[in-house]
Amino acid sequence: MKELPLSKVYQLLEPGPVVLLTTARKERANVMTMSWHMMIEFEPPQVACVVSNANYSFAALRAAGECVIAIPARRLATKVVKVGNSSGRDIDKFAAFGLTKMPAARVAPPLVAECFANLECKVTDRRLVNKYNLFILEVLKAWIDPTQKNPKTLHHRGYGTFVVDGRTIKLKSRMR
Amino acid sequence: MKELPLSKVYQLLEPGPVVLLTTARKERANVMTMSWHMMIEFEPPQVACVVSNANYSFAALRAAGECVIAIPARRLATKVVKVGNSSGRDIDKFAAFGLTKMPAARVAPPLVAECFANLECKVTDRRLVNKYNLFILEVLKAWIDPTQKNPKTLHHRGYGTFVVDGRTIKLKSRMR
Repeated sequence: MKELPLSKVYQLLEPGPVVLLTTARKERANVMTMSWHMMIEFEPPQVACVVSNANYSFAALRAAGECVIAIPARRLATKVVKVGNSSGRDIDKFAAFGLTKMPAARVAPPLVAECFANLECKVTDRRLVNKYNLFILEVLKAWIDPTQKNPKTLHHRGYGTFVVDGRTIKLKSRMR
Repeated sequence: MKELPLSKVYQLLEPGPVVLLTTARKERANVMTMSWHMMIEFEPPQVACVVSNANYSFAALRAAGECVIAIPARRLATKVVKVGNSSGRDIDKFAAFGLTKMPAARVAPPLVAECFANLECKVTDRRLVNKYNLFILEVLKAWIDPTQKNPKTLHHRGYGTFVVDGRTIKLKSRMR
């Protein structure tokens, strides 16, 4: 994994990819699948996300205030669905689905080695947690796997249906 | 436009498409381009979004508390960028870029006739507006254009680069 400048993080999350979210509690790491997230600030990058209080990850995220957002490419689609269909209450999902934990630099939850990008995050605002399960995160450090060239991400359409990234178009724009 | 059940709205926004946001103030409608949004609840559908206070739409959204989220398909890409590169302070973007206003049923801001989906929304929570420009919306009514079959949406990657929806894959899943 190679470090990615924080100013480029929004380009990874703004297109709306399905991501994995890792947490850690009492030395035990867990991973879930997440599609409800958005950028809210460019730099330092801040992200809002919803982690349902029905998810096992919710308590770990709220208590420890740390997570890693890992972005999987197309080839991980089957594992992404398996992660989303099981709970860390019952199994060790890393072992069960062959996902490799790598130590993060700034937070306790692990990076996911198979993902092409990993974002180390801390919770910075809990005001909307009780009502909406909505956490505000700041990205502390970002990693990218330079060996995965032009990864295609997945976009969830509900009930196991995903749209895979198609072609890229470039239009003249002043928009960041 | 045909009415879409509110329970299906998340399938439109969860994949992370670039959208248009219309507002209205003092009888004058405006439209902006937005990529920072996410679902936060299935039904009734609730959405979080960031509208920068540097945008002309910000004051209208905060004051009137109503908007329409309109989802453009690939063929509107050039207009989407033009909308994003100009301000309602200076021009009437509907007229300038050939976008057609249609009356909404529950809110004052207009639908955009050229978009394949339109979501009428009201602001329901302003607690994070001051700090993050983050609005919580509830979708009151949803419309879909049945003549636009399998529309491909756009996903912004920064600076006028967009990824267009590619192929759809279906995996066995219990995930909603």
